[in-house]
Amino acid sequence: MSNAINIEAWSCPLPLRDHANIILGHGGGGKLSAELVQHLFLPAFQNELLAHLGDSAVLPLAGGRLAFSTDSFVVQPLFFPGGNIGDLAINGTVNDVAMSGAQPLFLSAGFILEEGMAMERLGVIAQTMGAAARRAGVLLVTGDTKVVDRGHGDGVYINTSGLGLIAADVNIAPHLARPGDVVILSGAIGLHGIAVMSVRAGLDFDTVIESDSAPLNGLVATMLETTTQIHVLRDPTRGGVASALNEIAKASQVGITLDERKLPVPAAVHAACELLGLDPLYVANEGKLLAIVPASVAEALLAKMQQHPLGRQATIIGQVTARHPGMVVARTGLGGTRVVEMYVGEQLPRIC
Amino acid sequence: MSNAINIEAWSCPLPLRDHANIILGHGGGGKLSAELVQHLFLPAFQNELLAHLGDSAVLPLAGGRLAFSTDSFVVQPLFFPGGNIGDLAINGTVNDVAMSGAQPLFLSAGFILEEGMAMERLGVIAQTMGAAARRAGVLLVTGDTKVVDRGHGDGVYINTSGLGLIAADVNIAPHLARPGDVVILSGAIGLHGIAVMSVRAGLDFDTVIESDSAPLNGLVATMLETTTQIHVLRDPTRGGVASALNEIAKASQVGITLDERKLPVPAAVHAACELLGLDPLYVANEGKLLAIVPASVAEALLAKMQQHPLGRQATIIGQVTARHPGMVVARTGLGGTRVVEMYVGEQLPRIC
Repeated sequence: MSNAINIEAWSCPLPLRDHANIILGHGGGGKLSAELVQHLFLPAFQNELLAHLGDSAVLPLAGGRLAFSTDSFVVQPLFFPGGNIGDLAINGTVNDVAMSGAQPLFLSAGFILEEGMAMERLGVIAQTMGAAARRAGVLLVTGDTKVVDRGHGDGVYINTSGLGLIAADVNIAPHLARPGDVVILSGAIGLHGIAVMSVRAGLDFDTVIESDSAPLNGLVATMLETTTQIHVLRDPTRGGVASALNEIAKASQVGITLDERKLPVPAAVHAACELLGLDPLYVANEGKLLAIVPASVAEALLAKMQQHPLGRQATIIGQVTARHPGMVVARTGLGGTRVVEMYVGEQLPRIC
Repeated sequence: MSNAINIEAWSCPLPLRDHANIILGHGGGGKLSAELVQHLFLPAFQNELLAHLGDSAVLPLAGGRLAFSTDSFVVQPLFFPGGNIGDLAINGTVNDVAMSGAQPLFLSAGFILEEGMAMERLGVIAQTMGAAARRAGVLLVTGDTKVVDRGHGDGVYINTSGLGLIAADVNIAPHLARPGDVVILSGAIGLHGIAVMSVRAGLDFDTVIESDSAPLNGLVATMLETTTQIHVLRDPTRGGVASALNEIAKASQVGITLDERKLPVPAAVHAACELLGLDPLYVANEGKLLAIVPASVAEALLAKMQQHPLGRQATIIGQVTARHPGMVVARTGLGGTRVVEMYVGEQLPRIC
């Protein structure tokens, strides 16, 4: 096979050429990540299903539509307030599948273990995964284990892939936001990123900030019971709310206007961000979703979300507009506006 | 979530207790791997679909049956004679899906990149994956990229998960071997393992031994056109033919008798194995399959396989018997017999 590859023919447009080697920012979920996908992986893999670049691929199969998603988890440390890499790996893929409006059903788990990993820690992680799968109502049905020599891993890396069924009347994708839609956020932001960073930086806050890692499929099911008129769903993980909205603005070729004062940022997250020099809009969440819906259904949907344990603080944070297509703009507390750019590199490495 | 985990309640039966930490052998596809799955992962994830432990899970979905499989690839070096980690990752999962008799359709790809990985090498690997997917007739539809800091990876690790459709009249699984069946092997063994080991050990043979990495779904489709009476299919990868047959013997509670003189071991593989102190029966293959079928269909199937480019050297290597259930026994060239045990640890680390 490798003889068939012509290195010379491999075209790598700017600005990927600026980087002869992978840097941490290529994994940050920001501009560099997007460029790697756009200029290196997409040309190599090219096909129509991949080109949509949602959290899941939507596959026509056996008369229905299947959502299929994959995610690798390399979070460091493995254990953090509110969870560990195990429930993160389950919830992350459950959520990616749910963001296409699908009901997640089946998960796979692939482990890359580092020689020397403590068996008991691995056992706790596996137990956590089992419990998280039961909580989300999905089955772990197939798996794989590899071991790499000491110094070539970091305890354990976990890949999960997920499958779900999309109901016939559901049509949710990143490119379906329309001017006039409103942006709903399901709750407080910044918790997962700050929980992990606090451990890593050895910070000691008055209140322990716990990760919000949670399965969102139940909340999505509740939302779809209220209305199937949901245009976009997205969980703002790596790169936070800012990156997720930028991706949607670009995919839908619409502008998005945020009301910064409406963003639910807990005081402890705010304080930690000040200390660490972070912007909560870019910090990873693992149990929150963004929904973009027609204004006509927003109030009813919001009321329903607020009745769900994972949507109690749901709120409208912005609008979709025909102005400034592809851009996210925030109205600041002072009455001004600022452009919310996509982060270039990596604000918080190895956060999920 | 982690608060819900009771470490004390985590029961870890012998002999897993002998190892407080992960060792390379837990990734070798032998006894230690099996114990890790049996005693650590299965109790944590427990459900009926997982318990079958085939190369794929078989999922009842939308009125049909779907095969779902996952595999992580950590081969070292990344490039070897006959291929690289890219086509290995595609073919490996295509084959796992095909071993349930399914037609593989869709693949996901999850990359764990090490900081410092050369962009051009990654580009070649991605191009190789694209070409391998086209050769196998599958679509790469969803993906994920993470970056870990230097010294916590090894260039690139790739996880692929795969989906395929199983035709209504196909029923293939590791537990379906029956006394009276015969064991067919599709071609020469030991090529992939020796190709990788040669590079790693810096060995220079007269002939370059190339990996046999190839997609087996076309061969399986050809076989199923001849007869749907195929009981078991298995690609003897990690742990080789010996481990694959041991797993089948245990799953089906039958004995398997091998005729050692019938095993197609190329002279170069034989010589390399002598030099490296390896037994070809335990060396990994990435483009070969074992088929266990009723004796009544064996000759017709063999003739058909031999017409396929990937089955030209297909041959009957053994029989399934009601004697010594769970055991694999080889008739040696000298007329004696020996028990072919499952390898305990890792003969060839990081071979796939």
